[in-house]
Amino acid sequence: MPASRPEAHQFDIATASIHADKALNATPEVAPSLSVSSTYLYNKKDHKAVNMSGLSYSYSRDKTPVLSRAEAVIGAVCNGHAIAYSSGLSAMLALLIKLRPKRIVMEHGYFGSTNVVNLYKTLTPDLKIAPLCAEYRENDFVWLESPLNPTGEIKDISYYANKAHAVNAILAIDATFAPPPLCDPFKHGADVVVHSGTKYFGGHADVLYGAVITKCPKMAEELHAQRYVFGAVPGNMESWLVLRSMRTLKLRVLQQSKTTSMFVAWLANAAKGCTLAETDGIPVGSVTRVQHASLQKFSPSFDVCSQYPNGFGPVFSVCLASKEQALWVARNLKVFQFATSLGGVMSLVDWRYGDDTNQDPRLLRISIGLEDIEDLKNDFRSTIVASTFVNLNKL
Amino acid sequence: MPASRPEAHQFDIATASIHADKALNATPEVAPSLSVSSTYLYNKKDHKAVNMSGLSYSYSRDKTPVLSRAEAVIGAVCNGHAIAYSSGLSAMLALLIKLRPKRIVMEHGYFGSTNVVNLYKTLTPDLKIAPLCAEYRENDFVWLESPLNPTGEIKDISYYANKAHAVNAILAIDATFAPPPLCDPFKHGADVVVHSGTKYFGGHADVLYGAVITKCPKMAEELHAQRYVFGAVPGNMESWLVLRSMRTLKLRVLQQSKTTSMFVAWLANAAKGCTLAETDGIPVGSVTRVQHASLQKFSPSFDVCSQYPNGFGPVFSVCLASKEQALWVARNLKVFQFATSLGGVMSLVDWRYGDDTNQDPRLLRISIGLEDIEDLKNDFRSTIVASTFVNLNKL
Amino acid sequence: MPASRPEAHQFDIATASIHADKALNATPEVAPSLSVSSTYLYNKKDHKAVNMSGLSYSYSRDKTPVLSRAEAVIGAVCNGHAIAYSSGLSAMLALLIKLRPKRIVMEHGYFGSTNVVNLYKTLTPDLKIAPLCAEYRENDFVWLESPLNPTGEIKDISYYANKAHAVNAILAIDATFAPPPLCDPFKHGADVVVHSGTKYFGGHADVLYGAVITKCPKMAEELHAQRYVFGAVPGNMESWLVLRSMRTLKLRVLQQSKTTSMFVAWLANAAKGCTLAETDGIPVGSVTRVQHASLQKFSPSFDVCSQYPNGFGPVFSVCLASKEQALWVARNLKVFQFATSLGGVMSLVDWRYGDDTNQDPRLLRISIGLEDIEDLKNDFRSTIVASTFVNLNKL
Amino acid sequence: MPASRPEAHQFDIATASIHADKALNATPEVAPSLSVSSTYLYNKKDHKAVNMSGLSYSYSRDKTPVLSRAEAVIGAVCNGHAIAYSSGLSAMLALLIKLRPKRIVMEHGYFGSTNVVNLYKTLTPDLKIAPLCAEYRENDFVWLESPLNPTGEIKDISYYANKAHAVNAILAIDATFAPPPLCDPFKHGADVVVHSGTKYFGGHADVLYGAVITKCPKMAEELHAQRYVFGAVPGNMESWLVLRSMRTLKLRVLQQSKTTSMFVAWLANAAKGCTLAETDGIPVGSVTRVQHASLQKFSPSFDVCSQYPNGFGPVFSVCLASKEQALWVARNLKVFQFATSLGGVMSLVDWRYGDDTNQDPRLLRISIGLEDIEDLKNDFRSTIVASTFVNLNKL
Repeated sequence: MPASRPEAHQFDIATASIHADKALNATPEVAPSLSVSSTYLYNKKDHKAVNMSGLSYSYSRDKTPVLSRAEAVIGAVCNGHAIAYSSGLSAMLALLIKLRPKRIVMEHGYFGSTNVVNLYKTLTPDLKIAPLCAEYRENDFVWLESPLNPTGEIKDISYYANKAHAVNAILAIDATFAPPPLCDPFKHGADVVVHSGTKYFGGHADVLYGAVITKCPKMAEELHAQRYVFGAVPGNMESWLVLRSMRTLKLRVLQQSKTTSMFVAWLANAAKGCTLAETDGIPVGSVTRVQHASLQKFSPSFDVCSQYPNGFGPVFSVCLASKEQALWVARNLKVFQFATSLGGVMSLVDWRYGDDTNQDPRLLRISIGLEDIEDLKNDFRSTIVASTFVNLNKL
Repeated sequence: MPASRPEAHQFDIATASIHADKALNATPEVAPSLSVSSTYLYNKKDHKAVNMSGLSYSYSRDKTPVLSRAEAVIGAVCNGHAIAYSSGLSAMLALLIKLRPKRIVMEHGYFGSTNVVNLYKTLTPDLKIAPLCAEYRENDFVWLESPLNPTGEIKDISYYANKAHAVNAILAIDATFAPPPLCDPFKHGADVVVHSGTKYFGGHADVLYGAVITKCPKMAEELHAQRYVFGAVPGNMESWLVLRSMRTLKLRVLQQSKTTSMFVAWLANAAKGCTLAETDGIPVGSVTRVQHASLQKFSPSFDVCSQYPNGFGPVFSVCLASKEQALWVARNLKVFQFATSLGGVMSLVDWRYGDDTNQDPRLLRISIGLEDIEDLKNDFRSTIVASTFVNLNKL
Repeated sequence: MPASRPEAHQFDIATASIHADKALNATPEVAPSLSVSSTYLYNKKDHKAVNMSGLSYSYSRDKTPVLSRAEAVIGAVCNGHAIAYSSGLSAMLALLIKLRPKRIVMEHGYFGSTNVVNLYKTLTPDLKIAPLCAEYRENDFVWLESPLNPTGEIKDISYYANKAHAVNAILAIDATFAPPPLCDPFKHGADVVVHSGTKYFGGHADVLYGAVITKCPKMAEELHAQRYVFGAVPGNMESWLVLRSMRTLKLRVLQQSKTTSMFVAWLANAAKGCTLAETDGIPVGSVTRVQHASLQKFSPSFDVCSQYPNGFGPVFSVCLASKEQALWVARNLKVFQFATSLGGVMSLVDWRYGDDTNQDPRLLRISIGLEDIEDLKNDFRSTIVASTFVNLNKL
Repeated sequence: MPASRPEAHQFDIATASIHADKALNATPEVAPSLSVSSTYLYNKKDHKAVNMSGLSYSYSRDKTPVLSRAEAVIGAVCNGHAIAYSSGLSAMLALLIKLRPKRIVMEHGYFGSTNVVNLYKTLTPDLKIAPLCAEYRENDFVWLESPLNPTGEIKDISYYANKAHAVNAILAIDATFAPPPLCDPFKHGADVVVHSGTKYFGGHADVLYGAVITKCPKMAEELHAQRYVFGAVPGNMESWLVLRSMRTLKLRVLQQSKTTSMFVAWLANAAKGCTLAETDGIPVGSVTRVQHASLQKFSPSFDVCSQYPNGFGPVFSVCLASKEQALWVARNLKVFQFATSLGGVMSLVDWRYGDDTNQDPRLLRISIGLEDIEDLKNDFRSTIVASTFVNLNKL
């Protein structure tokens, strides 16, 4: 049974992220202990697993106090019941093994998700894959990445929910790039939500974590029971750090979202400008394309303000003039660090073509952290300027 | 590519457990850091994953320094290449998904392993299960638990290796109950070894961990690549603690094995005795059965001394006079703690019938820790004595 | 030698808190490892302590990578050189032992500081204590707590700096209650700044930590050398957590400060109101006094906006109608937790009279966390209302 | 009040090290949690610090569960009441500040202890220092390092206890080099025992820790109360790791002691031999001196077997032919690591002259770890042999 979340519903997400696990605290310690025990003394009365603060504990592959608390907070913040896993991919794989779909509807976004589907397919050779635009069938598993990796562009969740539910298909959202309080996919029809907790939940680039969130208590119980056998239980320090990080989730994500929209607007302006005055000093012609939800044109039927009431995700992509310039810039930025992943307090830049040749080689994926926007702009501007003084063909 | 183990082969297991990871240390720190980073700065020269001490790092779902070091030591100590997982069950599941057997040969021992097979079967409905005594077929996956849970009795690995290899079947050993230096299944024909690192590798009841060990570098590489998608990567603190615990593995296991054999002999004597003098004070008739490798009768063809040169595993089972007495004793022991699991520094007693009704309800599984044997005997004796003064039917 | 802070001066505090330790990173890991080694391999060439990223390491009582990095960030953010200690009190004691003052000028604020002075006095029986309003003498150690515990009221640092420097006395500020970016005491004449890092630096109620910050490299070196003997070195996990927490310091502190000023204004209004409409529902007469910097009347010579440009500290005090009501309310608040300490993400309420009978028994010290202000108001209002239905004399 | 140790007296040290903290466990977790909270919810009934498992908690500078448990085990194992500190030196300083001696009797052993005395002297300028052979006076603080750093030679504790107690002086033993079960100084008259827990208590070179142990409950309470102000509280992870390490203390220390005595005998033989056959292959004349308790000549009045019933400490010193050879060998050993400190699972070699010019420049201090003795011998022999082929004057 997933951890309960008493009263959490009545609070703002900021308050819930700090207090939703309080009922699970078995001691008067104000900050949670990092529980590590793999086993628990049995209840001496009835040979049941021992009860602590309303949950029964017997073996850490089932649950630990700190894991239960992390799940309670993730669940409260995401408006459902959360089951945590060692990684986002093991969360997705657990969901597939649970639902055992015969057809998966998806488009290519994050290559890791594609890899999970391929691994699942080795076990179920008859699996079919269909594109998002296909006609859906009963029991299809519709996997919607919104925002999409690496561009940060968003999809109309309601549209896909309606399309899926019309035929009794299931809509799962990979909402990693727009965590609460940016978007609540359940409000717009999602059946299940998956997060790579490695990103904004952890928020400091120091954990690997995943979560499946569902509104359905029965499915939560079944996933929990399945995990006991599946075995991809997150590490205790990882749960403890995610729990600690959730306390600042709202604050971090809103700030990162705000800085991103400003930074994207600044770059989009640079892409359009014809003089250095117009581009704010970015060499004309260097920025060839900027993609982000804040720049998207939406269909009138997509109620963006309802789905993303508090801003867009803090990841976007920018194309430079050439593959060579993209790489040189990525390597020479000083505040932005050249490394994969996203969602942390530190801004990162990744050249996705290196891992996924489906991507444009001129594209850089940028994850905005908590640095000051002027420091980020100065870093980006001065590095682009420097790149124009280098013979990029000789690299 | 799994972590290398330079020179480790030349050392005794005690030395290897302390030094086999030294080549992977990227800094002058004598004790390993608890590395947590989920991402690594790219090598600026060639856009490859960055090289540290001979291994390339890019994302923590692939590897982290502390995970690589734990694997290097487990591999060195187990005489193969190790791939670590979040738990023993996820290790077993990863192995099944990798090998995709159509038939699994096994007997019922640890119910968790049976559960994994059942989960695997939901994905591959045509899977067949056969008993160990069946005739084997090509590509069978033979899963041999030795020592067996919960009795601690051992199997002749060579016999099953020969039987399996004669038809090109694969022999996998769950060697959790007899870790190095008690038994090296590879020396006797095992193709692959699985450990629940939660037990003796961790050794302090504070981690959940699993490992697959193979002699074959190619299979190790493929399992490593599969884990990158499977996602059941162990937590970093878990890897760090396992690495720390491996330094004392030989010392702990040999001491626990020695205490166990003495304790088992003492109990077996009590089971046979007809007076309190003969039973060393244990009420006559209370101990009805004791099972452990040290009490087994072996076929002449089983070269026990070669397979278990340094003693037997520190888990055994004892049956008392009734289910009620077994439960009362388990609940009232003071040094032995009534909790599931095994392999830690603290002695534990478990009533297996509670989780697995295939077991005898009078049976207690006992895991001997590092306490002094006289303290353990006194605890057991006085609790049995006390149980004879209680109306067990009224509990 | 304290850790260097290359280029950190050029960045905003948000950026500095994330990047000031980057030069000390000896590996390509983006997030810092939790270094634990007590010893380091010697440099084989010259038998010096080994050099990593510009610092020399030999024994963890001197420094560890994670400690150096925490100090680098604290120093960058506080605009000086930081030396970290096991606790705020050991930081203060180390400073006293270093400076060996013959007279200490202070007023009673935090009782812990008074205790440190008393401990120091046992070693130097001739020590004199003088009040802040006394005439200062050469080499006096002026200890100014600003904001003051428990009221959160502030002092004019410039005034005391001028007064102290006129006679060659030293001005030390306990700035724990107004960390950066709220106040930089160095800009206003402080010679040395002390922080209990347990509070806002750690920010999650899960570390005990202290720091002395000085602008003077020589004093920093001497304090560092003294700590090697004094031995009050912070734990490695504590340094790692403080380093992690510093990444969000600006965000947390500004939000907590903002919520506090709004909450204080709301309570001050309730203290003045004569009807429930005027008090926003707080029973008239319950709130008898509210103290906080935002309510202080300042002398015209005190340039408050210059000293506190970004808001006031997130701690204040409120007096209720009686000791009994204060205690009842503290015990029955649900979002606010009844516990000592402050500075964390969770709002706390403390009844200071319990530890320090110099305080008003009706006074509650309140530390505002990161919860939503409406949730905090609702909790406070409803608990005060409930207290009026209880026979407080019967408790 | 220091943590209680119910029933611990009745157990062997191995059992006590695993169970002496059990009564302090507030939850059914078998392995201790890593508690981190800096503050605790008040008891709502009586505004006292909250009670957990018999101890009252309010603020982590006073105590935390994991610190109390580590102290309970150290106390049980050392046969007294333990107060833990951030480091061995802060433990010693706390003791000096507590006792405020006017004269300290000591000889030069560990230079860190000399440094602490010098720091204490800056606060108490009238302090006198006297040698161990001096006539003692009332209230003298006699500081006896036994075994002595760096030679591992031991002193007759009873002799000094009698000499000190005859005049009402206090005898404190730095017993770091011979932890339980090697020596119990209290049995032979010590008034107080100090340990650098960094060494054998931690045992893995990954913590900095110190402890004062006393038989006197009142002194323990006073030291505990003093630490609340002194502030040198150990880190929580350090306490947790020490607690974990204590479980294997007896096993580790006995094995290290045994290997050391064998290794020392081997080297002493080499020092005497005139042919390679006699020296077991060590170049004749290379080993010029070996010092260790096992080689000492004792006065008949020194009952060594009673004071060291289970063997001698695992540290000794060896002098080579020249300073240059000593350094070359230290730098080129492969299993032994060239780093300061001692007591860990890994064997270390230190050239003490580098930090303390009072020492012989040809002397190497060796700390024996848990490696196999043959691997250690091979490493030492082959490195000495190699050193004879190098022009050591050219280094």
